[in-house]
Amino acid sequence: MYLHGRNVLREILALPAGRLNVKRIIFTDSENADAGLRRLEDGARSRGWKIEFAGAERLFQLCREKKNQGVLIEIKRFPYADLDELLSPPSAGGESTLVVLDRIQDPHNLGAIVRSCAAAGGDGIVIGTHSAAEVTPAVVKVSSGLVFRLPVVRVANIAATLEKLKKRGYWIYASAMAGPSLWKTDFAPKTALVFGNESEGIRRLVRERSDHLISIPMEPGVDSLNVAASAAVVLFERRRRLGERAVPAEN
Amino acid sequence: MYLHGRNVLREILALPAGRLNVKRIIFTDSENADAGLRRLEDGARSRGWKIEFAGAERLFQLCREKKNQGVLIEIKRFPYADLDELLSPPSAGGESTLVVLDRIQDPHNLGAIVRSCAAAGGDGIVIGTHSAAEVTPAVVKVSSGLVFRLPVVRVANIAATLEKLKKRGYWIYASAMAGPSLWKTDFAPKTALVFGNESEGIRRLVRERSDHLISIPMEPGVDSLNVAASAAVVLFERRRRLGERAVPAEN
Repeated sequence: MYLHGRNVLREILALPAGRLNVKRIIFTDSENADAGLRRLEDGARSRGWKIEFAGAERLFQLCREKKNQGVLIEIKRFPYADLDELLSPPSAGGESTLVVLDRIQDPHNLGAIVRSCAAAGGDGIVIGTHSAAEVTPAVVKVSSGLVFRLPVVRVANIAATLEKLKKRGYWIYASAMAGPSLWKTDFAPKTALVFGNESEGIRRLVRERSDHLISIPMEPGVDSLNVAASAAVVLFERRRRLGERAVPAEN
Repeated sequence: MYLHGRNVLREILALPAGRLNVKRIIFTDSENADAGLRRLEDGARSRGWKIEFAGAERLFQLCREKKNQGVLIEIKRFPYADLDELLSPPSAGGESTLVVLDRIQDPHNLGAIVRSCAAAGGDGIVIGTHSAAEVTPAVVKVSSGLVFRLPVVRVANIAATLEKLKKRGYWIYASAMAGPSLWKTDFAPKTALVFGNESEGIRRLVRERSDHLISIPMEPGVDSLNVAASAAVVLFERRRRLGERAVPAEN
């Protein structure tokens, strides 16, 4: 799998050693490569990764993306996490925010939700293995590489996973068109936010496992937002409520 | 220009007569057309619009989109509004929220921002004529047709337009990476929210015309959100502050 983009390589360089199996990094062979690209090359070199150079044509052939910013990262596969890894150790202060996606199909939406989740201080993402976008190079790019900051877990059964989360102390909030206002919702210290498919929303079996429905108050006659917009609104409302307490020290 | 999609036709059917010059509506000639499509056909017929039928192949040829939901709407051009139209009459209660976009280039982002703006009760959108996505069929589709609920104004000079808005009583809030927290910002009754280009943000000349900078508090080390996610967060925070007062009666 060929990932591309400078932010993506920057995030990969920040990963703990051994977290990701990097096969090689391919930089543009253009002599106009700027200082930013040179710094990334130094970083990749110091990690001991295999480095190659290629022309613009070849870079495009490999990743099928013109806007690759002169850098490709070849990895074997995206490093999904286990659910157990996601759930332990608990976050500092006992507060935690997870995002669970029920059949999100547009890679652009998945990437944007991952980015918002990381930006809002969420602790991880759960996606399904069926009828759902997986983490592709496009998703990595749209997430601005932030998909590497969070554990992303793929599970066969979303409803059963919600049961496991509840056993670990999470309360489940399902985003729906109807339901109590987001602004009047009290979130539990351990909160899992569920968002559903772009056109069909959350499946009944998944909704039935949820503790609360929440909806974003909207203009009359408008029945839904883009799911990535909804997720951003809910995630940052959650962050607003947590206030400064949940902001970890800069590392 | 060929628009497509059922929500799009639904929004067009809800427009006041004469607002949009519809050249013709083309429905799928499939015998499996469902009741929803039949209702849309009745609606189009009662408006006196020219109606045609065509096979899936032909529909695709015209709009280049497989997911056209069996309906195309041919219009001459997107009906942009004038700035004067946007600014008068003033909203009920003297409260108003506008969105000004400084060189948003991705049609997906523009469509999602329009949708969020309409859903949050915003009163209109200003976009530039240079280096900016205009309202294309893709933008209309991503907005779920809601682009027809709001005046969209194209202006040659964003900075000069902000001056005009200020003369009409608007205060300008520019979304930036650094700046006072959104959550501590007091919005004026007449608020214009400015969002900038996906990679470069808001231009200096535009920022200098703004009264306030605002930023969304984020996790340390994350420097920005997708612009459509940012716009959703800011627009719904604005709506939350306006509370129930600004919600117009269902019409």
